Amino acid sequence: MKEFRFEIQATDGLARTGILHTPRGSIRTPAFMPVGTAGTVKAMLPQSVRETGADIILGNTYHLMLRPGAERISRLGGLHKFMDWQRPILTDSGGFQVMSLASLRKITEEGVRFQSHIDGHVEFLSPERAMEIQRLLGSDIQMVLDECPAFGATELEIEKSLALSMRWAVRSKIAFGEQASHACFGIVQGGVFPHLRARSAAQLLEIGFDGYAVGGLAVGEGQSAMFETLDATLPHLPSNRPRYLMGVGKPDDIVGAVLRGVDMFDCVLPTRSGRNGQAFTRSGALNLKNARFADDEGPLDSDCNCPACRRFSRAYLHHVVKSNEIIAAMLLTWHNLVYYQDLMERLRQEIATGTVTKIRKNS
Amino acid sequence: MKEFRFEIQATDGLARTGILHTPRGSIRTPAFMPVGTAGTVKAMLPQSVRETGADIILGNTYHLMLRPGAERISRLGGLHKFMDWQRPILTDSGGFQVMSLASLRKITEEGVRFQSHIDGHVEFLSPERAMEIQRLLGSDIQMVLDECPAFGATELEIEKSLALSMRWAVRSKIAFGEQASHACFGIVQGGVFPHLRARSAAQLLEIGFDGYAVGGLAVGEGQSAMFETLDATLPHLPSNRPRYLMGVGKPDDIVGAVLRGVDMFDCVLPTRSGRNGQAFTRSGALNLKNARFADDEGPLDSDCNCPACRRFSRAYLHHVVKSNEIIAAMLLTWHNLVYYQDLMERLRQEIATGTVTKIRKNS
Repeated sequence: MKEFRFEIQATDGLARTGILHTPRGSIRTPAFMPVGTAGTVKAMLPQSVRETGADIILGNTYHLMLRPGAERISRLGGLHKFMDWQRPILTDSGGFQVMSLASLRKITEEGVRFQSHIDGHVEFLSPERAMEIQRLLGSDIQMVLDECPAFGATELEIEKSLALSMRWAVRSKIAFGEQASHACFGIVQGGVFPHLRARSAAQLLEIGFDGYAVGGLAVGEGQSAMFETLDATLPHLPSNRPRYLMGVGKPDDIVGAVLRGVDMFDCVLPTRSGRNGQAFTRSGALNLKNARFADDEGPLDSDCNCPACRRFSRAYLHHVVKSNEIIAAMLLTWHNLVYYQDLMERLRQEIATGTVTKIRKNS
Repeated sequence: MKEFRFEIQATDGLARTGILHTPRGSIRTPAFMPVGTAGTVKAMLPQSVRETGADIILGNTYHLMLRPGAERISRLGGLHKFMDWQRPILTDSGGFQVMSLASLRKITEEGVRFQSHIDGHVEFLSPERAMEIQRLLGSDIQMVLDECPAFGATELEIEKSLALSMRWAVRSKIAFGEQASHACFGIVQGGVFPHLRARSAAQLLEIGFDGYAVGGLAVGEGQSAMFETLDATLPHLPSNRPRYLMGVGKPDDIVGAVLRGVDMFDCVLPTRSGRNGQAFTRSGALNLKNARFADDEGPLDSDCNCPACRRFSRAYLHHVVKSNEIIAAMLLTWHNLVYYQDLMERLRQEIATGTVTKIRKNS
């Protein structure tokens, strides 16, 4: 019996809420996955990540294969034990980071050869190796290796890239095999071209995956093009499988995507912004570097129950941001993750009570 | 009735253990005070600092007067509220940091004029202003302003500097006045010259303080010269007042000083080392950058109960140190502070049971 199972509990319009059951615990959907790139959700202890409400985090295959290495993590008992996170972990395939971080990339039918951005050594990633690395890490949800065309690529380039990604998807699935306790997700590509998205979805369905991701968005196309692409893509995906919009996004991107039927998200925005002195609040995004906060005795967000908001003033947060103190990154990351998880919880409740379409109608 | 009170509960040789009672809580002595320079014990949440066993922390007048400013902290309700630390805070006078961090210092009888190392603006610190700043911060234990001669100063220079420091001590005490709920400590200077230390102690006793610090040590003179200076100084201090050795030190410095009768310590070593990938353990100091830890599944220190030791391997700590992840600073700082607090707790128990002299006889 497959231990990995997706249970939809309520729908409202196209939006759905449910539970993704895994052997390592349940994931309430729609779900936001904090990014734990190199074996740590930056500036957070794992227990604190859990306290923000996260059911699952994301790990980056590219970073972990380069340092400390997948075989090493496997010898040490797997990524969960290594980083002290016992709940589910989704790992990407490394394809996106190879394109954005590595140098001297050479893509062939076989895979992609590249130089590490850390120490320059040459590495090779194929669909088979990407799946092997994710298996070594102990990933609960593995992603197929795909090629990620740069934003601005022509339709012909995207079509060609898509064809390669689909051949790689077949090889990824074969390499993954049949596993009861781990999941493998395919990734729909095709840029902003509806017919390519439809073709990609159909080909992935043919292969058959435990879930389907939408890749290649939030790369500069803008929110309306992203939403249009979701509108054109999601109807081609089976409704009983989880849908994951990769690398998205801003809070209103997430709301709009949830209304369109997306179940899972990941994004560095809350964590990266936290390290840059930026906070998401119910009254908008705030830059704590701003001098207007220097004497502000009020809490960052009076509706928030995180340590930054309960125990410190905006004046203090301004001070530690200006002073480049580590506690600034700790507190603002924590707050932003709570903000994101609270948003997901509200969306889940609105879907469960059939009010999300009405409440979020302008999204 | 004076609310600030020092109670010695047991002695063993020259070593003492007791409780320093303050309106903001009791301080078990010998005590180690983590350094919270700019309103934060770096890389730690205040609650975690408390969990390490710290009864009191230190704040730096120099840093706080420059940013965010003493008047601002006062308007915001004081340093305790600002940084969310409700237990006692000792503040230094700023004198030492003016000497080590500021530029364009000009010392006169009146005080010291200097340029901020942050933005170059000119500031002035006098004994009266140092006490006013500490009052604005809400400090529980205030330190007199003293002049700190550089290591290597001649006896004549130190004697001249000492004379100035003693005149400043008189002015500091007058500025402090009589306060029931706050303490003011004098600082013994005099370099490594016993007769100057004795003279300084006598002059401070004449003025009368709630406690007595030994300053101007751990500046390069070496451990044996430091211990000799303590041997020559402490007999001149009243046994019923707390004795504070400023800026010290390494674990064995602390043990040796406790054996000689010191009650209080502060040092950046555990926190700064933690940010540099170094850990104090029962089996010696470890540099986690070292490649030999890359595959080490064991805990940092098997006798330690901190989160770094309970939940992570040396291999993980090595990885996050090498990757410059913030969690490395968080975990190693936490561990080092626990190491220091555990050392103080053991020393207190050894003194209470009359075994410290025997157990630590080689210190």
